[in-house]
Amino acid sequence: MKAIAVEPGAGVPEIVERPVPEPATGDALVRVCRVGVDGTDYEVIEGSHGGTPAGDDRLILGHEAVGIVEDANGTSLEEGQYVVPTVRRPPAGAETNEYFERGEPDMAPEGEYVERGILGAHGFMAEYVTSPADSLVPIPDELAPWGFLVEPISISEKALQHARATRSAFDWEPESALVLGNGSLGLLTVAMFTTTLGYDRVYCLGRRDRPDPSIDVIERLGATYVDSRETPVSEIATAYEPMDVIYEATGYAKHAFESIDALAPNGVAALLGVPGDWSFEVDGGRLHRELVLHNKALVGSVNSNRTHFEAATETLAALPDEVLEAIVTGIYGLDAVDRAFPEITANVAAAGHGSSERVEDDTPIKTAVEFAPI
Amino acid sequence: MKAIAVEPGAGVPEIVERPVPEPATGDALVRVCRVGVDGTDYEVIEGSHGGTPAGDDRLILGHEAVGIVEDANGTSLEEGQYVVPTVRRPPAGAETNEYFERGEPDMAPEGEYVERGILGAHGFMAEYVTSPADSLVPIPDELAPWGFLVEPISISEKALQHARATRSAFDWEPESALVLGNGSLGLLTVAMFTTTLGYDRVYCLGRRDRPDPSIDVIERLGATYVDSRETPVSEIATAYEPMDVIYEATGYAKHAFESIDALAPNGVAALLGVPGDWSFEVDGGRLHRELVLHNKALVGSVNSNRTHFEAATETLAALPDEVLEAIVTGIYGLDAVDRAFPEITANVAAAGHGSSERVEDDTPIKTAVEFAPI
Repeated sequence: MKAIAVEPGAGVPEIVERPVPEPATGDALVRVCRVGVDGTDYEVIEGSHGGTPAGDDRLILGHEAVGIVEDANGTSLEEGQYVVPTVRRPPAGAETNEYFERGEPDMAPEGEYVERGILGAHGFMAEYVTSPADSLVPIPDELAPWGFLVEPISISEKALQHARATRSAFDWEPESALVLGNGSLGLLTVAMFTTTLGYDRVYCLGRRDRPDPSIDVIERLGATYVDSRETPVSEIATAYEPMDVIYEATGYAKHAFESIDALAPNGVAALLGVPGDWSFEVDGGRLHRELVLHNKALVGSVNSNRTHFEAATETLAALPDEVLEAIVTGIYGLDAVDRAFPEITANVAAAGHGSSERVEDDTPIKTAVEFAPI
Repeated sequence: MKAIAVEPGAGVPEIVERPVPEPATGDALVRVCRVGVDGTDYEVIEGSHGGTPAGDDRLILGHEAVGIVEDANGTSLEEGQYVVPTVRRPPAGAETNEYFERGEPDMAPEGEYVERGILGAHGFMAEYVTSPADSLVPIPDELAPWGFLVEPISISEKALQHARATRSAFDWEPESALVLGNGSLGLLTVAMFTTTLGYDRVYCLGRRDRPDPSIDVIERLGATYVDSRETPVSEIATAYEPMDVIYEATGYAKHAFESIDALAPNGVAALLGVPGDWSFEVDGGRLHRELVLHNKALVGSVNSNRTHFEAATETLAALPDEVLEAIVTGIYGLDAVDRAFPEITANVAAAGHGSSERVEDDTPIKTAVEFAPI
C-alpha cells in the first residue's frame, strides 16, 4: 500500500510503499479515506517537533483521519462503519498506563505516550491502518466527508472544556471571545464560538490583507476580524472590548502574555500554541497584579481524548456545510499530494501527475489528502 | 470610642476618637475583640494600595476581625454571638449589585465594591463597628480567640478552591504542594496543606536564616523549608520535585513566571501577591510551551466570600492550637499598638504606656490588636 512518510528534518514528505498492516487482537483494520494536514505536520516535516518510532528513520505522517472499518477483527466495531482514530497510544512496549486506563491519555506527561503521525508512532496517511478498536470513534456516514475535522475540533473541545473548568468555582456567563490566529484551527474555533457555543461577540485576530478567504469566513460567521498589525493583542481590550475567553492558536509566545491584558475581569485564556525558546521583556509586575486583582486564569492545553472526539462529532454536525466548505480549500489525491502541503515550496515526490482536488482556492486554509473515496 | 486610623502615605497609624456607630436597618452593632495585621495593612499605611472613603482624609484600618454581637438590631443574629465580618461591601451609594446578589463580591471588578479597612470604607480597628448582618459570619465561642485568622484563611480557601477548579476537567490527585512565602498567610496555608488537605509532601519557600520561628513552624508541620537564596523557584523541580500545586504569597513578580517551571505536568499555580510594575526578561517561548505541552494552569485570586469564611472557620477548628500559637507571635492592646505594627519603625501615637501582649517572640510573624477581651 501507499503511505506518506517523512524523514524528520528532510523538509519534504514522500510517498512510500509499505505492507498492509495486520490487525492484532483488539485492533481493527481501517481503510483510510481522508487525512487533514495541519501546522503540527509541518513542524514534524521540518524536524522541530515529534520524531520517528525507535529503529525507523521515517515517520508515516497524519493524525487527522477518517476511515472506514475494513476488518472489525472480532471487535465491537461494524465493518463499513466510518471512524475517526484518536492520536495518543501507550509508549512502545507498554500495554497501558494510568492515563490510558482512565481514558485521559491527553493528560499523560512526556514519556507516557506516543502520538500517531507525530511522535514515536506511525500516523494515518496510508491506505490502511490498524488501531485498537477503543481508539476508533464511530461517526455518522453523513459526516464522513468532513471527518478529518473531528480531531482538530476535539483539540478545541478539550481546551474550551478546561478553560470553562477554570471558571467553575463561581457564576460565570461569558459573552465575548477572542480567537488568536486565523488558520484552520482558529476558524473552526470561531465557528464553534458563534454557532454551537452561542457567544454574543466573537473576534478573530490575524495578519492578512483583504481580500482573504479566512477573513471572509470570519465575517460570514458574524465575527469581527482584528488585524494584529493595526491592533496588537495588548490593545484589544480598549480598541474593542475586554474578552471573557481567549483562545490562542498562533504559537506566538508574546500572545500568551499579552492575553492577560486583553482579558476581562474573571476571564480565562486557553493556550494551545507550541513556540520555540524566545526571551523577551514583559512588565511581569503588572501582569502578575492583573491576574490576581481581576481573578484571571491562563490554562495550557494539548491533545484531546475520546470524550472530546465524541463532543467534536456533535459540534461538526452542527456547523453549517458552507462554513466547512469555505475552510477546507483543497482535498487532493495521492497524484497531487504536493498540493496538500502548500507550505512546502519544494516538490513532493508524487506518484503521478494531474490533480484530483475537489475544492480549490488561491489561498489555502485547510487541506487534506484523500486515500479512498467517501 | 477609640479606633486606629491612617492617613494613607503618612506611614504611621494613629489612635483616633470616633463616635460609636449607629446600626442602620439590617445592620448589627459589633463590639470588636481582636483585629489581625497583615501585609495589606502595611500597603495601605504606606499609601501603595487602597484608599480612604470619599470626603475623608483618614481610613480606619483593619479587615481581619473577630467581635461579639452587642446589638442584633432586629437581625437574625444573637447578641453575645462571636462573628467575623467579611470585607467587601457594595460601593458608596449602591445598595447592591449582581456580584453581591449572588454572594460573590470577591468576583466583582474594580468599581463594583469597596473593601473595609482597605479601599473606600472604614475598617474594623475600632471598639465598635456596624455591618449588615449577612456580612457577619458566626463562629463558635471556642474559636473566638483565633477568630481574626478566619479572614486570612478564607483568602486561601478561595485561592485553593479556584486552583482545584482549574483541574476539575480531569482526574487529578495532587500530592505535592509548594507555598511561596513564609509570612503568616504562607504558614497558615502550609498548615492547611499538611493538616486539613492531607498533602503528602509540602514545601515552603522563604529567605531567612536559621534559627527562625517561621522555619520552626514549617518543620513542626512536617513540611520542608526551601531557602530561595540557595534554591530559586525555577530550580525547585529538579532540586526537590515538580509540584502539583503552588501557592504564591510573596508578591514577587518573578515567582509568578518561575512557578511555571516548578509545576509538575497538569499542575496549577495560584497567585495571590499584588506586586507593583516591574519589567524583566523571561524565556516566554519556553514558558508558553511548558504551559501547553504539560497542561499547566495559572490562576489569580483576590478576596473571598462568605462561603470561604465558613470553610475557613472549619479549617481553623482543625488546626492544632500549638501551630496557631506559634504563628501568632503577639496580641497587643491599644496601650501597645505600636508593637502590633512591627514593620513600622516610626512610633505609633499610642494611647498610653506599658504593654498588654499575650504572646511574644523576638521575630514577629502574626500580630493582632485587642480592643476587648475574649
